[in-house]
Amino acid sequence: MTTPEPIPFFSAAQDFASGKDTPRALLERCLARLDAFEPRVGAFVCHDIKAARAAADGSTERWRAGRTLSPIDGLPIGIKDIIETANMPTEMGSPLWAGWRTGRDGASVAALRECGAVILGKTVTTEFATTGPRGARNAWDAERTPGGSSSGSAAAVACGMVPVALGTQVVGSILRPASFCGCVGYKPTVGGINRGGSYDYFSQSCTGALAASLEDAWIVAINIAARAGGDPGYPGIQGPLEPPAPRRPRALAMLETAGWEGAVPEARRALEVAVARLVAEGITITDRHADQNIDAVERAIFDAAGLTRTINAWEGRWPLNTYRNRDASKLSQSALDRLVTAEAMTLADYRGAISQRQQIRELHGRLAVQYDGAITLTAPGPAPVGIGWTGDPAFVVPGSLLGVPTMSLPLLSAEGLPLGLQVIGYASGDARLFEIATAVRDLLQARA
Amino acid sequence: MTTPEPIPFFSAAQDFASGKDTPRALLERCLARLDAFEPRVGAFVCHDIKAARAAADGSTERWRAGRTLSPIDGLPIGIKDIIETANMPTEMGSPLWAGWRTGRDGASVAALRECGAVILGKTVTTEFATTGPRGARNAWDAERTPGGSSSGSAAAVACGMVPVALGTQVVGSILRPASFCGCVGYKPTVGGINRGGSYDYFSQSCTGALAASLEDAWIVAINIAARAGGDPGYPGIQGPLEPPAPRRPRALAMLETAGWEGAVPEARRALEVAVARLVAEGITITDRHADQNIDAVERAIFDAAGLTRTINAWEGRWPLNTYRNRDASKLSQSALDRLVTAEAMTLADYRGAISQRQQIRELHGRLAVQYDGAITLTAPGPAPVGIGWTGDPAFVVPGSLLGVPTMSLPLLSAEGLPLGLQVIGYASGDARLFEIATAVRDLLQARA
Repeated sequence: MTTPEPIPFFSAAQDFASGKDTPRALLERCLARLDAFEPRVGAFVCHDIKAARAAADGSTERWRAGRTLSPIDGLPIGIKDIIETANMPTEMGSPLWAGWRTGRDGASVAALRECGAVILGKTVTTEFATTGPRGARNAWDAERTPGGSSSGSAAAVACGMVPVALGTQVVGSILRPASFCGCVGYKPTVGGINRGGSYDYFSQSCTGALAASLEDAWIVAINIAARAGGDPGYPGIQGPLEPPAPRRPRALAMLETAGWEGAVPEARRALEVAVARLVAEGITITDRHADQNIDAVERAIFDAAGLTRTINAWEGRWPLNTYRNRDASKLSQSALDRLVTAEAMTLADYRGAISQRQQIRELHGRLAVQYDGAITLTAPGPAPVGIGWTGDPAFVVPGSLLGVPTMSLPLLSAEGLPLGLQVIGYASGDARLFEIATAVRDLLQARA
Repeated sequence: MTTPEPIPFFSAAQDFASGKDTPRALLERCLARLDAFEPRVGAFVCHDIKAARAAADGSTERWRAGRTLSPIDGLPIGIKDIIETANMPTEMGSPLWAGWRTGRDGASVAALRECGAVILGKTVTTEFATTGPRGARNAWDAERTPGGSSSGSAAAVACGMVPVALGTQVVGSILRPASFCGCVGYKPTVGGINRGGSYDYFSQSCTGALAASLEDAWIVAINIAARAGGDPGYPGIQGPLEPPAPRRPRALAMLETAGWEGAVPEARRALEVAVARLVAEGITITDRHADQNIDAVERAIFDAAGLTRTINAWEGRWPLNTYRNRDASKLSQSALDRLVTAEAMTLADYRGAISQRQQIRELHGRLAVQYDGAITLTAPGPAPVGIGWTGDPAFVVPGSLLGVPTMSLPLLSAEGLPLGLQVIGYASGDARLFEIATAVRDLLQARA
């Protein structure tokens, strides 16, 4: 078994027009990885290789004819199995929904088809994209979790089965698995990508991408948003339809979050080395000890996990209550426990929680005056051993709570395993986040 | 055939504890109306009388034992057929979804069951709750439309088949049919009632109630919200779990909207008489000609219908695109046309439209300094003849665009048919709206 390595799309597509490479050939390279890794990794719930090959052939023809539908025409992609697909079931990681077919595409999937993307299959999600792993494994070490809840999406991208897979994040479900699997994870500004047809009802949840590269993450997200928009009532992701050019940040905040205390020494050291390199390049990086505004944000986000649990518990009351009525034996104990928590809450409790969240968002937003963004670890260490737990979200839940765009870049390592560097932006500043994250990546890769 | 008359719940329930009346007896009175009117009206897509009787018997027992689950325990209710129900199909007024069963309840339906309400059946909706009537008729005159899109909900409540039915409104789908059928219609502040499990993806759409009385509308809405909350991220309807006490408004704005020019003389006269009565009671009522702030709002909302069409077109692109892919022959021409409109739009067009909407909302919100609310007609006249068109929404679309709570009271008439008096509140002021609307109703009924 070789080391897992993503297969990027954006760079490959540079050769599509000339015919030196083709979408079909790219798909076949992905399928070879599927053959090699899938028996051990289990990233997919189902796939449709025949349909994918036909779609890739159509795309190959369009590239040849100069009539591509979008910059992601021909992109093989996996869809997290909480998002509806017309030609495949949507099982939500739950035996209650085994074989469930709706006959329609979710908004993001419909947009992907309009773009000419090649839908390869549905990727494993934990139960209802919350807790409760469903068997996917880490391609770097099959004894370890790939993270969750977008477990299969990260696992598939990490070893090149697809260059990109859709994920969703309400706590840490995109960035955490990206860190554990060694791929890029991008969670947009909340509301950035239309969640229509995604069985995902949390107010701070967002559809995003696990991707082989930062460029791939962007072109997928922006080209979906251009067609499907954001969630109804939201402006959606804004920016160019091609990858934003790198723009070096002037100043970044270094956030500890609640994760720093528990981070393994090698992870802390990896971040410190990266920070030192960026400082050496002339970027100002400031932490809570040097700026009381950052310290105020650190204190406000310290219990991001607790506040998120409260908000999610209330918002998850439905549909769990109707699922419990249908067949409680098919729900995990953690789902049943969350429902009990929800039923002990009042709407007034919930109002208090979302009001507190709003205050924290406003406090964080004021950092934009001083800092172009923030950096920190994505996880306190590499993927933990065992597939019964998807890992600690302490470093990533603040980005979810804040509703800001945030990204994990596979630039660090610990114990010889991948570890993400997290870059955090500001609400509606997704393109700006990509600009600075690209610059950070380029600087750190040049020096590595 | 007798004149249609609603059967109220709140007043009947006063006799449930003593056993003088019972939920089962109330249900039987409703079922007698169903027998009498349904063959001509066609308000229901399907119903489950056996399950309803069993539920009503359970409620009768709880009232007897003093262990009711909520103030609406025992309430027979109809559910607009775009909201999921575990025990009945959800067909959305579309042949594409004939017989569609999801096996789960929508959030509002799950809350109703927790409340002990008696789910009688699914009420007719136009295609996807937009245009495209599906055959329901007006109980006052079967040659006329009941209005739409909550056609069956209004038709059923108007003749007492149920005291309350859930509806949804994005243009005029609750208030318009309430006016045409002669019942109360209540559209909450946008986000007020959790739309989970409702096939309704518009940003200014809202679940609300068609009801026999103002009290019934309130207790249903607030008791759902107390359990299901509002849309995720929204505070939900706030207020007492029992009907708010009447509170006489000090000052009201009289809005013409774009509907005034086209209103039939008898309707205009009916509003003018009502206004004169309220003024005689000491309430200040001011219109655009006397206050430039009102005039500014009138100008801002004049094209509420056009701006709403733009917003809805974009937001409706999905799922119509995936439905067209599935079987275009099962979509109405108007749905196909809306999709073409959407596909000619860009996300930037949409952003401009929602930004304009936000500006109009802020302008209207400033009226709260001067006025406790606004009044106007609900419709330019009685229900039009013919069932191929659900009527003019000119008077009600501003409330949808503004996202404010708004209500139609069956206090006026024209051509011997029902006509609604509309009372409009401010965002999150749902309880306050009920206070002033109750006072207005009491004043006008006392003088009638």
